Order: sequence, then C-alpha cells, then structure tokens
Amino acid sequence: MRIGAIEAGGTKFVCGVGDEHGNIVDRVSFPTERPEPTLERVIDYFRDKKVEAIGIGTFGPIDIDPSSPTYGHVTTTPKPGWSGFDFLGTMKRAFDVPFGWDTDVNAAAYGEAVWGAAKGLDSCVYYTFGTGVGVGIFAEGRLVHGLLHPEGGHVLTRRHPDDTYEGFCPYHGDCLEGMAAGPAIERRWGVKGSELPPDHPAWPMEAFYIGQALASTIVLLSPKKVILGGGVMHQKQLFPMIREEVKRNLNGYVAHDAILKGIDDYIVPPGLGDNAGLCGALALGLAALRVQS
Amino acid sequence: MRIGAIEAGGTKFVCGVGDEHGNIVDRVSFPTERPEPTLERVIDYFRDKKVEAIGIGTFGPIDIDPSSPTYGHVTTTPKPGWSGFDFLGTMKRAFDVPFGWDTDVNAAAYGEAVWGAAKGLDSCVYYTFGTGVGVGIFAEGRLVHGLLHPEGGHVLTRRHPDDTYEGFCPYHGDCLEGMAAGPAIERRWGVKGSELPPDHPAWPMEAFYIGQALASTIVLLSPKKVILGGGVMHQKQLFPMIREEVKRNLNGYVAHDAILKGIDDYIVPPGLGDNAGLCGALALGLAALRVQS
Ligand SMILES: Nc1ncnc2c1ncn2[C@@H]1O[C@H](COP(=O)(O)OP(=O)(O)O)[C@@H](O)[C@H]1O
Ligand SMILES: Nc1ncnc2c1ncn2[C@@H]1O[C@H](COP(=O)(O)OP(=O)(O)O)[C@@H](O)[C@H]1O
Ligand SMILES: [Zn+2]
Ligand SMILES: [Zn+2]
Repeated sequence: MRIGAIEAGGTKFVCGVGDEHGNIVDRVSFPTERPEPTLERVIDYFRDKKVEAIGIGTFGPIDIDPSSPTYGHVTTTPKPGWSGFDFLGTMKRAFDVPFGWDTDVNAAAYGEAVWGAAKGLDSCVYYTFGTGVGVGIFAEGRLVHGLLHPEGGHVLTRRHPDDTYEGFCPYHGDCLEGMAAGPAIERRWGVKGSELPPDHPAWPMEAFYIGQALASTIVLLSPKKVILGGGVMHQKQLFPMIREEVKRNLNGYVAHDAILKGIDDYIVPPGLGDNAGLCGALALGLAALRVQS
Repeated sequence: MRIGAIEAGGTKFVCGVGDEHGNIVDRVSFPTERPEPTLERVIDYFRDKKVEAIGIGTFGPIDIDPSSPTYGHVTTTPKPGWSGFDFLGTMKRAFDVPFGWDTDVNAAAYGEAVWGAAKGLDSCVYYTFGTGVGVGIFAEGRLVHGLLHPEGGHVLTRRHPDDTYEGFCPYHGDCLEGMAAGPAIERRWGVKGSELPPDHPAWPMEAFYIGQALASTIVLLSPKKVILGGGVMHQKQLFPMIREEVKRNLNGYVAHDAILKGIDDYIVPPGLGDNAGLCGALALGLAALRVQS
C-alpha cells in the first residue's frame, strides 16, 4: 500500500510516501513559500508516486468543517498569501484520491496513537513547543474538533514569580504560547534556547509554564498519554522538570497510578520522534482511504 | 418506552422515569445518606416501574473504565461510606436491564446535546457551579473519558487582583473550584451567594474566574456550545458578565462568529433547566438500551 503524507509547517513542508505500517519509504522537504509555488512542488512530488490516498497535517488555523463552503482552506494566518487559500481543493484538483485533512498537531496526536507512544490507546494529547505552541487532542478514539480545532497553545497560565517577561502573543501577551514557545525563551534570556546550557534557569521556568498547562489539561481531559514534541523539547532535561511540576500542581488530586507512580511513562517525547508529524499525516491518509472503501 | 434515570448528587438523589423524547413522567427525591440505605430507596422506587433500562449520572469520582475490576464503583470520595462502594453493581443485582453509567456532569452535557441547549450539535461543554465545580465534555458525538473522567473544576486560574481569599480546595487552594464554587463565595464575602444583591462586587469577581476558565476551555476544545448550570448560576446577571470576560480573555483569537457575534447564544444556561441532570441520566439509559439492542 502506498499512501502520501504532507506535513505542512509554517517554516518547511515535508512530503513523503509510506505504507500501512507507518514506514516512510520516501521523503522530501523544502521551505514554505507563498502557497502557489509551494503547492506546485508538492504536486510535482506526488505526480509519479502512485499513492492511493494523501493525508495532510497542516499549520493553521484551517477550516475542518466538511459542511462549510471554505472547508479545506487555511483561514486567518499572517503568513503572506496563505490566508483564505484553498489548500485541500488545490490538492484535490491535482489528484483523484481520498484525502485526510487536519491540523499538524491533531495529525501528530493521531500518528502517535496509531504507531507511537500512545499506540493502542483511545486517547492522548500532543503538545508541540516550537515557534508557537500547538495542541492535538485524540479522545474516545477520535480526533477532537468543534467550532474550529483545538488551539490550546493560548490557554492562560499563571506567571512565574521571578518572571518579568511580558510575553509575545499578539492576542494575549502572556498566554502559554506567549510565555513558553521558542521565541519567548529567546526574548526573555536574549539568546536562542538551543544555546542555553541545560542547567540554565530558563529551563525550570519553562517547566513551570508547561507543567501548569499540562496539569489543567489533565484535570480537564484525563488523557491516557501526554506527548510533548517540537524544537524546545529537544532539551531533554525538561521532561523530569515538567513531570515534577505536573505532580506539584495536581497534588495527588488525579488518583491514578499512571500519574502517581508511572509519570515517567505518562508524559513522554513522541514515540515516532521527528517523524510524528509526517507519520500522523500518513495515518490521516490511511484513515481517509478506509472511510472511502 | 419507559427508561429509568438516577441523578445521584452529593446532597440529594433524584430518581425518575421518562420516555425516549426526554419527558419525565414521574420523579422522587430524597437526601443522600450512606450508600446502603440510599440505594435501598432507589431500588424500592424502581421496583414496580417496569423500566427497560436505567441511566445513572452520579457525583464522583467514579470508575468508568469497563475493563477495570472496580468498574461502576465510586472511588475516592470523602462522603462517609461511599468510597469504594459498588454503586452500579448494586443496581445491576437488583434489575436485569441495560445500565448507563457516567458522571452527573457528563450526563448533563449529554442530556443537553440530546434534548437541550446543544440539541443536534456533536459537541458541548457543561459546567456546574455549585458546592463544587464540575465539567462534562461531549466531543465528536461522544462523552469524553480517559484515564478517569473530566475533573475540570480543578483547572488553575489566575487570581483576581483585588481578591485576597485563599481558596478552599483541599488539594490546590485557589484552583477554579477553590475560588468560584458556592462555598468560596460564602467564605470570601461572609454570606451565602443567594443573599448577595445582584450588584454586589462578588459577581464581577465570580465572572472573572469563570470567564478565564471558559476561555481556556474554548481554546483547548473549541466546543460548539458552553452550558453553565448549578446553584451559583441562578444568579442570572452572571451570564452577561461571563460572556464579556470570555471575550476579553480570547481577545478575538477564536475567529468564529459563534463567539465574535453570537456569544449570547453560545454561553447559555441549561436548555433543560434544573432537569439537565435527570434528563441526562435518562439519555444515558436510552443510549445503553440502544447499544444492547
Ligand atoms: N535544541 C533546542 N533547544 C531549545 N529550543 C530549540 C531547540 N531547537 C529549536 N528550538 C526552538 O524551537 C523553535 C522552532 O521550533 P520547531 O518545532 O523546530 O519548528 P516550528 O515550530 O517552526 O515547526 C525556535 O524558537 C527554536 O529557537
Ligand atoms: N441563588 C443562588 N445564588 C448564589 N449561590 C447559590 C444560589 N443557590 C445555591 N447557591 C450556592 O450553590 C451551592 C449549591 O449548589 P447546587 O448546584 O444547588 O448543589 P450541589 O452542587 O450540591 O449539587 C451552594 O454553595 C449555594 O450557596
Ligand atoms: Zn495567546
Ligand atoms: Zn482544586
């Protein structure tokens, strides 16, 4: 079986071909430009790939309501040219195959549930901490959408007592994304996160914000696995700090062994590593094929 | 069709019989005592009612994992006698009918989705502000569970700048429940909420906490309707204040007309009024019957 996968990021696009076991057999990557030239490269890539379906996990916000006239469009993004662009329609006009269509983070959550850290579970939450903060939610065996899709990067967290940074979210200032995405670390400390040593005070502060958001997510949704990805999470020392913050915030309230005893196996990096997004898109494509047949 | 419904609250039990249209044709109510005498009254009530199924929406926490050996039990509650009590098993031994089993707030969310304010929608969130704060989540056409069930009353909110009250949650102090449930109002202002005038500063402060929690819930889950019930919400002046707080917190970020233009119809009281809980239990019973047949 040959399924196409598109991980459409704000910075780069990754396209690939994989099979029903989550193996990626081919891939390419190129920078995200304006929509027309970018999609032209995508369409060129898939032209001779003989895929039976294509899954798209994309940056957003996007319209995921099948009954909407703008279903499949990118909605209100500041990225030049992309606002209102008919991403899914453009792809459908080029390839007559079933399409999966969701956010990059919902795709990653789904990929992790099918082949990764949440394999076999009917729920997980996927958080990415990168240029922004994104959240994908898989619950009761389904990806969650509603009016729009989850945008949990913008939950409101309490300020760390030693933190004077105002936050960079243009809507909320010091929401989670404003305080804990990669650019917040860089602006707060004056250097990129990747250049800060592992024992720098930036990391306990980062864990303070992430742990708080996760504790609230856990009481609200009770996911069976919490998966943390994105560039910032390459700082592996964050994981034990975040787990401690979650325990401190919950303070024993969620009386389940997964948290009380097994938190090292509950809050984890993506089982698919940096393939989480592309495998997630692959899983979306596979699901679209199954729905059709 | 005759379906039994049990709304099991920490203070009182309501039992009733209804039909497949959500009409309650009979009901009784009595105080919640220790489990054995309480369930005896429940069983007595249903003995001659000839119901085809029974739905239970109960205070918790409860075990809702069908694969767990303690499925159907109340878990760790301070209520004397109830911790570890096999509620569902006791009922099943008395009546050989299909049973629906969920939290009181998930039941209420479901009832509202079937017959109430979220009728016909595939998602809604139900918050109750009473002795505690509870949250029920209906998403993608299903009630959400995970490790346990939603316990969103304990999300962490930011403190109001004029508020010096420490919060009464034994686990978290000033979580949402600790700051915004009925007892918080009473302890903060020294009188019961029901005795405070509608223009008292208690209400903008209450709306501050509720609006914050709702804004975070909305970005995270994007529900199609937000329903607010419980004793505290009898203060109708809270609704416009809460809507304003939600708009202030979101600050235009969730670009959907339901919020930007139609918020009066988005954040609403239960369509079923004080029947939300009992009708929800009825809907659970009906669903259990349908699954079996
Ligand atoms: N090793 C690292 N340590 C800390 N921060 C990092 C690291 N690598 C990348 N980042 C930060 O993560 C952000 C990029 O996130 P990434 O997930 O790689 O891409 P994007 O979110 O654009 O898809 C940048 O703000 C960058 O500074
Ligand atoms: N009209 C009212 N105005 C403000 N608070 C009220 C009102 N009625 C009840 N309450 C508060 O709500 C709480 C009881 O909530 P309720 O939903 O009636 O019951 P429970 O949560 O026990 O099921 C109490 O703390 C009470 O003070
Ligand atoms: Zn924000
Ligand atoms: Zn609490």
